[in-house]
Amino acid sequence: MINEKNVRLGEVRSSIRELFEYGKKRKAEIGDDKVFDFSIGNPSVPAPAEVREAIVEILQTYDPVQLHGYTSAQGDYSVRQVLADYINSRFSTKLTADCLYLTCGAAASLTITLNALLNAGDEIITFAPFFPEYGVFTEHAGGKLIAVGVEEGTFRIDFDKLESAITAHTKGVIINSPNNPSGVVYPEKDIIRLAELLKKYSEKYGEPIYLISDEPYRELVFDKEVKVPYVMNYYPHSIVCYSYSKSLSLPGERIGYIAVNNEMPQFSKVYAGICGAGRALGFVCAPNLFQQLIKKVYNVTSDISVYKNNRDRLYAALVDYGFGVVKPDGAFYLFVKSMEESAAAFCERAKEYELLIVPGDDFGCNGYARVSYCVSPEMIERALPAFKKLSESYRNK
Amino acid sequence: MINEKNVRLGEVRSSIRELFEYGKKRKAEIGDDKVFDFSIGNPSVPAPAEVREAIVEILQTYDPVQLHGYTSAQGDYSVRQVLADYINSRFSTKLTADCLYLTCGAAASLTITLNALLNAGDEIITFAPFFPEYGVFTEHAGGKLIAVGVEEGTFRIDFDKLESAITAHTKGVIINSPNNPSGVVYPEKDIIRLAELLKKYSEKYGEPIYLISDEPYRELVFDKEVKVPYVMNYYPHSIVCYSYSKSLSLPGERIGYIAVNNEMPQFSKVYAGICGAGRALGFVCAPNLFQQLIKKVYNVTSDISVYKNNRDRLYAALVDYGFGVVKPDGAFYLFVKSMEESAAAFCERAKEYELLIVPGDDFGCNGYARVSYCVSPEMIERALPAFKKLSESYRNK
Repeated sequence: MINEKNVRLGEVRSSIRELFEYGKKRKAEIGDDKVFDFSIGNPSVPAPAEVREAIVEILQTYDPVQLHGYTSAQGDYSVRQVLADYINSRFSTKLTADCLYLTCGAAASLTITLNALLNAGDEIITFAPFFPEYGVFTEHAGGKLIAVGVEEGTFRIDFDKLESAITAHTKGVIINSPNNPSGVVYPEKDIIRLAELLKKYSEKYGEPIYLISDEPYRELVFDKEVKVPYVMNYYPHSIVCYSYSKSLSLPGERIGYIAVNNEMPQFSKVYAGICGAGRALGFVCAPNLFQQLIKKVYNVTSDISVYKNNRDRLYAALVDYGFGVVKPDGAFYLFVKSMEESAAAFCERAKEYELLIVPGDDFGCNGYARVSYCVSPEMIERALPAFKKLSESYRNK
Repeated sequence: MINEKNVRLGEVRSSIRELFEYGKKRKAEIGDDKVFDFSIGNPSVPAPAEVREAIVEILQTYDPVQLHGYTSAQGDYSVRQVLADYINSRFSTKLTADCLYLTCGAAASLTITLNALLNAGDEIITFAPFFPEYGVFTEHAGGKLIAVGVEEGTFRIDFDKLESAITAHTKGVIINSPNNPSGVVYPEKDIIRLAELLKKYSEKYGEPIYLISDEPYRELVFDKEVKVPYVMNYYPHSIVCYSYSKSLSLPGERIGYIAVNNEMPQFSKVYAGICGAGRALGFVCAPNLFQQLIKKVYNVTSDISVYKNNRDRLYAALVDYGFGVVKPDGAFYLFVKSMEESAAAFCERAKEYELLIVPGDDFGCNGYARVSYCVSPEMIERALPAFKKLSESYRNK
């Protein structure tokens, strides 16, 4: 017998992926422009021109032995120094290069962090709806993911539910703000309250509860008044898992970082655990060409206005058609209330109108469907009548 | 308490890395050209010109959304198809695109394969001397690495020792040919005998014993008469872990693949296990730009003749100076017999002549030292008098 758990993980296709494959088949049958695929969270905006320019310049000016050679496991020191300085200038932290560990993207940031922190039986709390791989990553690291429901109607943290989920086994809490799939951004007062609660229970149980902030969507926030608080300013035992996948539209290139708050007393142990976990998982170093790229474009983002316009257009239309939906502050998802009890049935009915949207059940939250609006504005225009018909089909039943 | 095992892994610097850091310090003290650093296995030959040309062409002609987007977890289908065709043309296999799984390099190939195969308590056999991370990777996957000694004087498999190490817990055998650190290539007759033995014990215990061939050095073979047998031609339960780190001098870019032999009856389960393990470890997909690069330069290598010339010059000189050394067929390492019982003491004495070489103890093999000759030919010339003096220091004692 080989490892049955991993065999099952490899055999089960996610329903997002199933839907995407269905969409490809359906497009072949009735035409690309007749199918409205809102299933996948793949950036639709190209990487900014600076990315191509910087890569070409790097290729033409760097010594190839250095450029394509191993960096230290943590990443090239000079790259980490630039990122630490940038984070400090944005968030008034006092990070050094040695607080950063460059990774092969957000998933690697999370698996490395979880493997550094967890012992068998430890628990990680997160808030439903959540990115489903959190469960896979936590279990592989020997832990158990505890999903806690959020405030009805706002998708913000329900502190009573959170408090009753914390136990002596709680090793950490993962937040994801802006959130996939709800688009919610936690306001500062929620982060302050979260920090107070974690401090209280860390003291009660005599062991720190780590706050892991999964931030692939940090830069995708559309309104000036919305701020994404930086967790290190509120809580010493905090770790930021960052990725350039969405901000620079580089999801396939696998580049991101872990930043460990140097204000935590256990900093050296936690950072060493991250180095050890990266080694045990087989990461070696983040792709060097992309490390050097990030050193040059660390403060650039793709054209986020496309997502903002998509959000505004789609949100207004869906509300107009009678859908229940909380206006998302960021990321590129709308989480729409199902018009019948089963979100799976709702999404099946949407298919009759060639709309491909994902049941919230996959994100640990029944009764909703995720609409990914990282798509072309033209497709949104073409899809609006279909959304209207879907809504009408429930009113006329 | 966080995960102490990973903390320790992160805190312990490998002695190779220690030596490398010592070398940097020493160079600052006495000058770059006075220190002879043979410690690190980092390719010294630049990536071939085709690499830069292909990357620039890809950047200028591909749609950036596609180019930098996610591929399927297994890797872009068209890339896998090209690689399957190439492997089939070289080794007369009948692989399909779906036998390949693109990875972030050799370490990822190994950790994914081991996590796919191993259950807690399973054993993996390898042959000492071996790449020390095999132990780290196997343990993280829940298994135990059993290091079996090799034939004295040749570094080839000692089949009696191997046979006595196989138990009902043996899940697989890792071979690494050309070998780091001995440079030995296993001849065909050894692979045939190995396959027979594994078949016999697979039948005895009623479970396949998998043969994992770790092949980062496959292309680094210097003599026409030396062939590296392709394990799939000899044994159905075989898995090849390949990397472009050394063949294309891209170690920092993390690109390689796993090829699963489709002649094994459990093929679908093993491949699914690999997909599941890749997911659980957080790999998502191999860097897409480098996937597309490999599609264009799959049959190109760096200028291997530099390593051949280094080997010839250094081997001849060391033999002349009285060192005991088996002529390496491939890779870029010489494994030199220590001139005193403790290889650590031998390497310490080498430092007195500014020679940085690594004790074989790190590779599970006492009494030897590794000399990495992926260095400039000029440094070898400058270093030869130091090697001569090191040898003389033992004769004159």
